[in-house]
Amino acid sequence: MDQHTTIARAQAAQARCIDNNLLEQWPDFFTQSCLYKITTLENHTLGLPAGLMHAFSRAMLVDRITALRQANIYERQLYRHIIGLPAILATEADGRVRSETPFLVVRILRQGETDLFATGRYLDLWDLGGENALLAERIVVCDSSRIDTQLALPL
Amino acid sequence: MDQHTTIARAQAAQARCIDNNLLEQWPDFFTQSCLYKITTLENHTLGLPAGLMHAFSRAMLVDRITALRQANIYERQLYRHIIGLPAILATEADGRVRSETPFLVVRILRQGETDLFATGRYLDLWDLGGENALLAERIVVCDSSRIDTQLALPL
Amino acid sequence: MDQHTTIARAQAAQARCIDNNLLEQWPDFFTQSCLYKITTLENHTLGLPAGLMHAFSRAMLVDRITALRQANIYERQLYRHIIGLPAILATEADGRVRSETPFLVVRILRQGETDLFATGRYLDLWDLGGENALLAERIVVCDSSRIDTQLALPL
Repeated sequence: MDQHTTIARAQAAQARCIDNNLLEQWPDFFTQSCLYKITTLENHTLGLPAGLMHAFSRAMLVDRITALRQANIYERQLYRHIIGLPAILATEADGRVRSETPFLVVRILRQGETDLFATGRYLDLWDLGGENALLAERIVVCDSSRIDTQLALPL
Repeated sequence: MDQHTTIARAQAAQARCIDNNLLEQWPDFFTQSCLYKITTLENHTLGLPAGLMHAFSRAMLVDRITALRQANIYERQLYRHIIGLPAILATEADGRVRSETPFLVVRILRQGETDLFATGRYLDLWDLGGENALLAERIVVCDSSRIDTQLALPL
Repeated sequence: MDQHTTIARAQAAQARCIDNNLLEQWPDFFTQSCLYKITTLENHTLGLPAGLMHAFSRAMLVDRITALRQANIYERQLYRHIIGLPAILATEADGRVRSETPFLVVRILRQGETDLFATGRYLDLWDLGGENALLAERIVVCDSSRIDTQLALPL
């Protein structure tokens, strides 16, 4: 299986955890030390801080999920990710691979309303050396600057 | 071609029949005896009956299409499916393969209005032993419980 | 890499140029002499002229992009393409390959509003003989006839 296919399938598996209320499995897609942040194109382009969500380790992602569970966030909303094919951007000196992948997220409120919640790109750094593809870095760049700041679930 | 790729391409080919007004070809993607139903996440989780659409054989799917043709349903609306990559869930003892695949369907009314009609997951059981990948089972689980009960075209 | 995979990746790479404001790279995905047009399903079915946008060479596509730059079109809006898997339709006598691929485009206005802008199909003719997959023909068939006639960016 080539890198492109490995990454595309890992993206699908990861989004499935979020969309199917299997959120506890989601941090397993990251390396122990990692960067995860959600930002907007505007902030990303200007080099401004992310603001929306960021974490520096798998442990922080686990904490985040515990908090979401306590807030019963899945009682109120679901996401549905539709993810495009990745572009492989570069291979780092240490063998890790940078990719960019477009996404679209639909939000379904428990009352039934459905809206186009977010679109954007995943800027990822993958460690493909182990059994599973792991994210060392994921920067979620949302296209719109008008993203809901009450952002709850990971994108 | 691996199972994952086979399934992803079969999904695309099947959705194409629905979206391109080639509906008569759609039942050919199912085994003679099969299960097809459309349900909501809520009903699926609670084990409640589907309500929206169900069929127990390819012949019933053929009947359904005949009815849609008589109702001139394509005169009034189109669907456009955008389908994510499948997750392979299990291989049954008889060699058939279970997969789960996210989807999004946009509805285009003939007057030109376009709306985000449905999102959800296909829970599929595939018979991959023959020349073409065939569906022995497809449960379409819609994310929202507020799906249009006038649901006409297959999802 | 099989034709199907080659085409799917070329589609993703091409859409990335449009969505990421790398529009100058976009004509490189076409052969020197080529056909590019945007039409609606209604006009396409009736054989009526396209109306929305058409070009007969890579040079015309380059001109188009120069015009978009002068109009500062990226200052006002972005697109985000989500593209499904292609269907391979035919191989021509000269070895070129016809495919059909579903797409969805979201438009993000700079004020932040996001809407479902267009859905449809790419009807493509690919020259796969060189190092990169090149489009000899792309007919963009939009599902809705109510597409914004101020259409600015390529779809």
